[in-house]
Amino acid sequence: MQFLRRLGCGPVTPVDVPIALLGYGTVGAAVHRLLVETGDDIERLTGRRLRVTRALVRDLAKERGFAPEDGVLTTDAEEILGDGEIALAAELMGGLEPAGSYVLSLLERGVSVVTANKQLVAHRSPELFAAAARGGAQLRFEACVCAAIPVIKVLREALVATHVHRVLGIVNGTTNFVLGEMEAGRTYEEALAEAQRLGYAEADPVDDVSGADAAAKMAILASVAFGARVAPEDVEVEGIEAVRPEHVAAARALEMTVKLVGQATLANGAADVRVGPALVDRHHPLAAVEGAFNAVMLQGDAIREITLSGPGAGGIETASAVVADLVSIVGTSGPGFLQDDPARRSLARADADAIRSPFYVRVDVDDRPGVLARVAGQLAVEGVSVARLVQNQTDAGATLHIVTHEAPVGSVARSVRAIAAMPETLEPPTALRVVSDRGVEELGWT
Amino acid sequence: MQFLRRLGCGPVTPVDVPIALLGYGTVGAAVHRLLVETGDDIERLTGRRLRVTRALVRDLAKERGFAPEDGVLTTDAEEILGDGEIALAAELMGGLEPAGSYVLSLLERGVSVVTANKQLVAHRSPELFAAAARGGAQLRFEACVCAAIPVIKVLREALVATHVHRVLGIVNGTTNFVLGEMEAGRTYEEALAEAQRLGYAEADPVDDVSGADAAAKMAILASVAFGARVAPEDVEVEGIEAVRPEHVAAARALEMTVKLVGQATLANGAADVRVGPALVDRHHPLAAVEGAFNAVMLQGDAIREITLSGPGAGGIETASAVVADLVSIVGTSGPGFLQDDPARRSLARADADAIRSPFYVRVDVDDRPGVLARVAGQLAVEGVSVARLVQNQTDAGATLHIVTHEAPVGSVARSVRAIAAMPETLEPPTALRVVSDRGVEELGWT
Repeated sequence: MQFLRRLGCGPVTPVDVPIALLGYGTVGAAVHRLLVETGDDIERLTGRRLRVTRALVRDLAKERGFAPEDGVLTTDAEEILGDGEIALAAELMGGLEPAGSYVLSLLERGVSVVTANKQLVAHRSPELFAAAARGGAQLRFEACVCAAIPVIKVLREALVATHVHRVLGIVNGTTNFVLGEMEAGRTYEEALAEAQRLGYAEADPVDDVSGADAAAKMAILASVAFGARVAPEDVEVEGIEAVRPEHVAAARALEMTVKLVGQATLANGAADVRVGPALVDRHHPLAAVEGAFNAVMLQGDAIREITLSGPGAGGIETASAVVADLVSIVGTSGPGFLQDDPARRSLARADADAIRSPFYVRVDVDDRPGVLARVAGQLAVEGVSVARLVQNQTDAGATLHIVTHEAPVGSVARSVRAIAAMPETLEPPTALRVVSDRGVEELGWT
Repeated sequence: MQFLRRLGCGPVTPVDVPIALLGYGTVGAAVHRLLVETGDDIERLTGRRLRVTRALVRDLAKERGFAPEDGVLTTDAEEILGDGEIALAAELMGGLEPAGSYVLSLLERGVSVVTANKQLVAHRSPELFAAAARGGAQLRFEACVCAAIPVIKVLREALVATHVHRVLGIVNGTTNFVLGEMEAGRTYEEALAEAQRLGYAEADPVDDVSGADAAAKMAILASVAFGARVAPEDVEVEGIEAVRPEHVAAARALEMTVKLVGQATLANGAADVRVGPALVDRHHPLAAVEGAFNAVMLQGDAIREITLSGPGAGGIETASAVVADLVSIVGTSGPGFLQDDPARRSLARADADAIRSPFYVRVDVDDRPGVLARVAGQLAVEGVSVARLVQNQTDAGATLHIVTHEAPVGSVARSVRAIAAMPETLEPPTALRVVSDRGVEELGWT
């Protein structure tokens, strides 16, 4: 952290921060790209320009997703470990060694490190943090748990005044996808094959399906939440290999769903951390976590419960967490981190015709011949297309329930005004936006 | 920030940070209590002891939820505004004035401020941030939006490398509760009366039901997410007063639910921010937000979508956000913020009999007389009580589906081992934890 010490707390002037990447695969290339693309934002927020100046790779000739400048790549770790200009490093190699030795060496000499290596953090954090303390460096590891979901920052910074006593999590996307496919009627073997086909599961999926990956993440989460070391060996683990369609069917009969749940509990000064298949109530927030998504629920004194969810894996998602950690290190080493006025630019207010949404429109009409056609015509004239229409007879006439395809908000508003003005319309119509991840044509009417 | 300037970036030694509270009602008393109760943790993390030394109140004689020391309370704002020892202040008075003038005065002279006052931030943040910049102070406002849900920190720090282009939120708990009650069959009037009875709605609920409260929060969220000023007047607002049981019924028929949804969209360099009732697909994460809870979904380039949910209001929840902001200010003004080894203590591994959970147990048995009694007996001998039992005939015998009440994990494991060893048991039994917020006796079997 020479650059930080040199700068001290003096006035903020744009300064280059030379960064080394250990590993330049999918995540490494994405980190480099994000640092380049968001460089202006980061400089505005921190007064620093973060630049990748060295990157350790195994093969110089390999094609890269985002090519570094000439001279950045090296196959010689010593070139990076001995480079006195490097201010920060990101370890994106994976594996316990040689990654662990490299990180220790950097921390010892005061270079702060961000790592995405959950096995390294889960197994060796005591020696890593001891080295960081000796070197006066920071070690950040947001990307180790659930990629871009910022659960480590939330636990360490936002919940600093809360004693978290329970962490519940769906922290492995592969198994959540497999169980979701089983929910949809597939066998375990079919579901796993589909996960492999889509790239959610490795050719050798044992780390995921055995619960080992989830156990490492829960060990890290429990360590941070409870402020005490929980090693992967301390986690009671059961995988999903034994889940059968009969279990999924029984869960459904109970209005539940089978999920691989990590659960860390602090009670009476002792910790219990376990990972295993569980039945989750459909009304529980974790039940809504679908596909390869992850979610973590934190329960504590002052907050009751806070749930964070999102994609738990992916190159760019992981890179986003790595870059945020790099910026946090830079920001916490000088004055004024990220605390300028957040509104730095002007934006026009969007025209209502530029914003699109599907809508639900309800119209009560006199049940006269041609009225349906006239209502549909008022929508059509504005280019609003009908996805579903249900007509119910009422005492006074008929109620039309219309779900539109995505349409400009302004067009829908004009259509509804025109429909309101029709002599057949009995009451002012209602138009409500529809929020759905499914296409409106898939909606039912039950 | 004299204390910070004085300390510079030198070695961290425990130093008192004198804090002023402007307002000492429910939230103020809770902030003081949290600062006292978590004082050791905060000092370990930051090297600083945060102490409330002054608090502005209207009535010195009023009883307080957490009593301050003698001499802390004052009715004279000038005593606080002119106190050169004050290093940080939290504004918890509410209202635009005099709160706004007090905050401006503190920021101008370099005292960083944390505020929970969403109307103040939504309406006057340009002048507040300008004053903070002139004074070299920080202004933090996490508690303005959704209490303890750390959406501002996540947007500003964790998503620093992501361009967020859409924010979807259920940011008003009162209206979400009212709509939930309508879903359960009540009219709007009945639901609102129930919300008032439970303290979720004010006697005059117009700020909530008109959407004005949600609009102020969405204006703040859009400003932070898009980095551009969005004022409350820029938000297109519709309240829930016009939502009728027919709308809720139509939503149900479409497998949707009616929610008051805030939606901020950045498209083609223009912003669109609106709040209004919308139909939300039951499979959408926002549909799962029940009762007075809040949720915010952030969509961006590098993260796809991240959803944060939790209680959006409450004294202690708001206080938790205020304290986290105070600690963040202290932490970002010196070295080493919150980046020591998170594991600071040792915890025993909990005994499996100290951890309790309901379980689903599935046993395939020979269908002989007395087998059900023997299975139930193996549970009873360990004190495991059965909440539901369903027996299905199969070709080979019978399948027993058992849901237990909460029981020690170790007791269930021993029962299941004993059942596995019974001669009538055909296959190894399965035991899966049940995760539910409902009592297991409420579960169905459909």
